[in-house]
Amino acid sequence: MISEKMKKSVSGSSVIRAMFEEGTKLSKIYGAENVFDFSIGNPNVEPPASIKKAIIDIVNEENPNKVHGYMNNSGYEDVREAIAQNINKKHGLDLTFKNIVMTVGAAGGLNVIFKTILNPEDEVITFSPFFGEYRGYVDNFGGKLVIVPTHMGTFEPDLAALEAAITPKTKAVIVNNPNNPTGVVYKEAVIKGIADLLTRKSEELGTCIYIVSDEPYRELVYDEHIKVPYMLKYYKNAFIGYSYSKSLSLPGERIGYIAFSNDMDDFEDVAQGLGIATRILGYVNAPSLMQRVIARCLDSEVDVSIYKKNRDLLYNHLTSIGFECAKPEGAFYLFVKALIPDDTAFAAAAKKYNLLVVPGSAFGCPGYFRLAYCTSFEKIEKSLAAFTKLAEEFKK
Amino acid sequence: MISEKMKKSVSGSSVIRAMFEEGTKLSKIYGAENVFDFSIGNPNVEPPASIKKAIIDIVNEENPNKVHGYMNNSGYEDVREAIAQNINKKHGLDLTFKNIVMTVGAAGGLNVIFKTILNPEDEVITFSPFFGEYRGYVDNFGGKLVIVPTHMGTFEPDLAALEAAITPKTKAVIVNNPNNPTGVVYKEAVIKGIADLLTRKSEELGTCIYIVSDEPYRELVYDEHIKVPYMLKYYKNAFIGYSYSKSLSLPGERIGYIAFSNDMDDFEDVAQGLGIATRILGYVNAPSLMQRVIARCLDSEVDVSIYKKNRDLLYNHLTSIGFECAKPEGAFYLFVKALIPDDTAFAAAAKKYNLLVVPGSAFGCPGYFRLAYCTSFEKIEKSLAAFTKLAEEFKK
Repeated sequence: MISEKMKKSVSGSSVIRAMFEEGTKLSKIYGAENVFDFSIGNPNVEPPASIKKAIIDIVNEENPNKVHGYMNNSGYEDVREAIAQNINKKHGLDLTFKNIVMTVGAAGGLNVIFKTILNPEDEVITFSPFFGEYRGYVDNFGGKLVIVPTHMGTFEPDLAALEAAITPKTKAVIVNNPNNPTGVVYKEAVIKGIADLLTRKSEELGTCIYIVSDEPYRELVYDEHIKVPYMLKYYKNAFIGYSYSKSLSLPGERIGYIAFSNDMDDFEDVAQGLGIATRILGYVNAPSLMQRVIARCLDSEVDVSIYKKNRDLLYNHLTSIGFECAKPEGAFYLFVKALIPDDTAFAAAAKKYNLLVVPGSAFGCPGYFRLAYCTSFEKIEKSLAAFTKLAEEFKK
Repeated sequence: MISEKMKKSVSGSSVIRAMFEEGTKLSKIYGAENVFDFSIGNPNVEPPASIKKAIIDIVNEENPNKVHGYMNNSGYEDVREAIAQNINKKHGLDLTFKNIVMTVGAAGGLNVIFKTILNPEDEVITFSPFFGEYRGYVDNFGGKLVIVPTHMGTFEPDLAALEAAITPKTKAVIVNNPNNPTGVVYKEAVIKGIADLLTRKSEELGTCIYIVSDEPYRELVYDEHIKVPYMLKYYKNAFIGYSYSKSLSLPGERIGYIAFSNDMDDFEDVAQGLGIATRILGYVNAPSLMQRVIARCLDSEVDVSIYKKNRDLLYNHLTSIGFECAKPEGAFYLFVKALIPDDTAFAAAAKKYNLLVVPGSAFGCPGYFRLAYCTSFEKIEKSLAAFTKLAEEFKK
């Protein structure tokens, strides 16, 4: 009775659902403290104290019909202006509220962007491994996801492979930086390479190829000298999909924004399209109280050193017992080579040791598995012996 | 560069946008206090005090990573269970958390429902006049909106016209009760009539025709003896799309839910489909803090008497000066017959008197205009003279 597409989604999602159910089952048998769930990217680091203060101050100080009311579909102008100025300060740009559309997280933002730009059969390129949800976001609007492999090992985009994949139907390239699931940060040379290639191909083909830069992990970088290039400085037809889910540990609140440049082609049409897409897709607007909270917390951050400590502990242990893995420079994921080619079988084997991991196939990259290390340090410490046992099983 | 569909939306939405811009322009010339904006359904009645208390208590009492974190795509189980029990108490049902999916308002809920059930080319019936956004929600998933007229004057569904419009492609019928834009409440006989007809036609055609009951105005009813029938009691394949936007004056917060019955066909597939649709459409989940706020405020209400006073003042004046209008029993809209057939020209004429109204064409019903009276009593009082002048212009 449900739609044909949804029937496929229901049966397709059963692997991950089964894993979650397995987690609950394992917790009941062994106790939650003995189950090592590395499956979900749900931040365990607390939101900064400024969030709580801002929430309380706003409901005490501001007019409740304004705080909880409708505003422009693109968001409160004062909030958008504050975000624009904050971006300008950090990246030396000249954005105003007109360059910002508030969204229901980055997931909402990406859907709004694709609703605005995609015609049926348009192609959207992503680099594998990739965040599996892109498949659904592009399919929602009749687009086709085209998967281009990265250089195995470094997981950096392969520009020759990208060029080979571009056709007259190519409407956008998704760049996820820092990357989920690999934790790799694309540096300036890579971003410039992509931007120059797309500029040239757009001219050659007489089309407009957008970059959709998905950046929920922008603030989660572990070394001061590593800079995540700001996409609007390198490419005029770029959208940034940003979210406060990870940078302020607010994933459930669904608050983020789209930023785009004054130099974007057809700027007015795009700006209006984004607002209309926000309305038609039923978001209507990003949650109002959280918009106002964000405007008061633009310089707040979570304590990234906690994730870094987790990364070091887990990365050092895994590589010491024979696992291969690119050392993540950002985000809170490790993408590790499985010890057998069948990553689904490997994830199933891990469950015997109460380790819950996501097979690489879910990210279009079989033979690997992803670990989300946004969990407690103590839990990771306790899990190390389980990883050792898992490795020993496959070395025999 | 934007998609073909979006190009049409951008040019199509320019009438309403122009009206809003006109409002801003008029406010600058005459002062905001002299511009009578009846265009937007943005509640002016304050949220109950319990909302502010719940927000502050939750951020003080509950774990911040739980309050602001990810949960099941369908929402917190404890919140869903509390809502189910509240419905059971009011309507004598036996729902549990499994019958509730938390949504980004009713607009988000309707999109999730249509994503779950619609195949391309499926038909969705709505009664005119209708909330114009339905057009976009159905089109998002390749569905076709089929418009069936109501009995002019009473604006109640015409069952013969409904039956004539049903085809093997009919997948759903939208019932909006209390109604936007007419303010009419469909009573038990009407609801039973629709349910019986759809039961019979589903059997005849061997299909499943869903009812999508859009009920954001359920709590806004002006006479105690008027009951808004609870759809799940009358039809097994019904979804209720509910929102707290109006009942608690929280439209910007985007919080609502879908309720559906245990007797629904393919219950498990539908339940899973709704969760997956929530994820894929980029909502991911309804805003988390607001979910927890709602659970603490289930018996709170806004002061509906304020809207009733507004309705009486405006309805009595308009009918006394010759306008024709069904007296609204709920919601906060008046749907008034224009004094000339061209409702767009009439709305343009109204602007001369600083009156901003929405032409009936926006609701698929030319020859009328809609007034949203969720504005201050003082503003309405001040506007009466302008309506009188407008009427006089067309009586000449």
